[in-house]
Amino acid sequence: MLLPTVFRSVQEDYHHLKAAVQLWDVACERQVEIRGPDAGRLVQMLTPRDLRGMLPGQCYYMPIVDETGGMMNDPVVVKLAEDRWWISVADSDLLFWVKGIAYGYRLDVLVDEPDVSPLAVQGPKADDVMAALFGDAVRDIRFFRFGLFDFHGRGLVIARSGYSKQGGFEIYVEGADLGMPLWNALMEAGAPHDIRAGCPNLIERIEGGLLSYGNDMDRRNTPHECGLGRFCNTQTAIGCVGRDALLRVAQEGPVRQIRAIEIAGDALPGCDRLWPLMAGEKKVGHVSSAAWSPDFGCGVAIGMVRMTHWDDGTELHVETPEGRRVARVRESFWL
Amino acid sequence: MLLPTVFRSVQEDYHHLKAAVQLWDVACERQVEIRGPDAGRLVQMLTPRDLRGMLPGQCYYMPIVDETGGMMNDPVVVKLAEDRWWISVADSDLLFWVKGIAYGYRLDVLVDEPDVSPLAVQGPKADDVMAALFGDAVRDIRFFRFGLFDFHGRGLVIARSGYSKQGGFEIYVEGADLGMPLWNALMEAGAPHDIRAGCPNLIERIEGGLLSYGNDMDRRNTPHECGLGRFCNTQTAIGCVGRDALLRVAQEGPVRQIRAIEIAGDALPGCDRLWPLMAGEKKVGHVSSAAWSPDFGCGVAIGMVRMTHWDDGTELHVETPEGRRVARVRESFWL
Repeated sequence: MLLPTVFRSVQEDYHHLKAAVQLWDVACERQVEIRGPDAGRLVQMLTPRDLRGMLPGQCYYMPIVDETGGMMNDPVVVKLAEDRWWISVADSDLLFWVKGIAYGYRLDVLVDEPDVSPLAVQGPKADDVMAALFGDAVRDIRFFRFGLFDFHGRGLVIARSGYSKQGGFEIYVEGADLGMPLWNALMEAGAPHDIRAGCPNLIERIEGGLLSYGNDMDRRNTPHECGLGRFCNTQTAIGCVGRDALLRVAQEGPVRQIRAIEIAGDALPGCDRLWPLMAGEKKVGHVSSAAWSPDFGCGVAIGMVRMTHWDDGTELHVETPEGRRVARVRESFWL
Repeated sequence: MLLPTVFRSVQEDYHHLKAAVQLWDVACERQVEIRGPDAGRLVQMLTPRDLRGMLPGQCYYMPIVDETGGMMNDPVVVKLAEDRWWISVADSDLLFWVKGIAYGYRLDVLVDEPDVSPLAVQGPKADDVMAALFGDAVRDIRFFRFGLFDFHGRGLVIARSGYSKQGGFEIYVEGADLGMPLWNALMEAGAPHDIRAGCPNLIERIEGGLLSYGNDMDRRNTPHECGLGRFCNTQTAIGCVGRDALLRVAQEGPVRQIRAIEIAGDALPGCDRLWPLMAGEKKVGHVSSAAWSPDFGCGVAIGMVRMTHWDDGTELHVETPEGRRVARVRESFWL
């Protein structure tokens, strides 16, 4: 999955995202649509999160695991109706997995990739921009809920969600032909609010502890290692793939876990591979994402740390390509 | 899947590939490994090609389809043993599909992505280069067979196969640490034969009718439309996914099919989207890959043509971004 990572500079984008509003063309993030009488059963099979209380109009962040409890993705699922769902995949591929499960269990569903392209409006001014185009009702959408709004006579699913901690919306643009008109309309509506084209921002997402699949975690990790244990209701998520393995993990607890890591010093090189986290000469984990944060005046990072060294305040070293730095384990992320 | 497409120029690479030998780093092409007592059953489920006669030591080109007979990929499968197979995926993703089917059918298999990176040695001098490094026994490997050869004390699967019509081998490099030593050893062994780093060549692959998944075909197409009907033994490939749909297709025959298309005139623009194939003002198909061939002095192309216009010699027009060209349907590809 290729996404832009920077428009002006990562730091300039970062300040702008936190102060104004950005339009992110994330159309490459595809949806897996599941339709039919067995749709609900299939979606529940895909995740250890208990979906029984989920209503149409809600979105859930939902870990998807394989039969051993290894993370296959962490998408948002959109419940359009009892028999119609979208799995909104930010990166990696899920269509074939869902089709394979549906086929293997002979479920009465249709699994496909519809012509739906997400467009994110993120930043503190997002509400104002969206209200200017869609009316004030858009302000009433609650977090991880969605509503249907009209654009050019067509209904669009608009959810209060997104891959930043600055607030905002994700618009599920159904029909590629709507893309340019909608983009232009939002740019126009956002002009008074200094709207710009943008993209997920490395610094901001680390500050907020937003994980990136394939970088911070992959199939080798359980949700519990990723700090997603609260989304695993393995006792009640009946029929979910990976239940047996995750019940065992839930009982024993993970031996390593994602942690916020504060790195001392100035600007950091790009973290394009795992950086070892060392306690003396012993490797006790790694850093998978790192950047220097202007707002916090330190290096902010996402790491995986063994339980022997994961307590708040534990002082470690991280081996960057440009040398050792002091790294401190934090209880929580910055935002 | 990102692969290099050119080193010097597409034409210069083309002439060199046909005259000498190239080393293609296609390590990004991953393997899906299937192990366990149900491995054979699972692989047969994945393809309409009858695998009953396949022996360990053989490679098969094998269409993989979904439950409606739509192409999901066309990999080479390597039978290492009765209970151990590699599916060698050039592009797109199959791991999750295979895992999904295995899970759904509760098959007794382990499905994973091993640390195996293909390295292709392609071109008329490939035998000489390989024999210099691995000994003359490598010359005895028959087409789509493989043998085990020693390198630095480790066994490597070497198959006579590859994504060109110039002959050569694919080495399944097991263990990423072997990559650089092997690359250097082959470059050294190939120096007298003018070996160069290279990649699949657009012109050469079109001349040879080698299809590219995602370009020339995708899930909308059946194998029969792709001219792969001879790999569909739907009567005997017991239990294969898509059997019902493909039996129907086999009975009725496809209404459109891949054809070699000769395009009149000089240099062609890059075919980065489908070019309509027109009979007068009626659209009867499209071209999905095209290039100008120095050796044949014409445009060579891969197209999908409706049966009303697919006979050898049918004259059509193709709408390129730089205007209409005369296009003629050919019975077969050039190589």
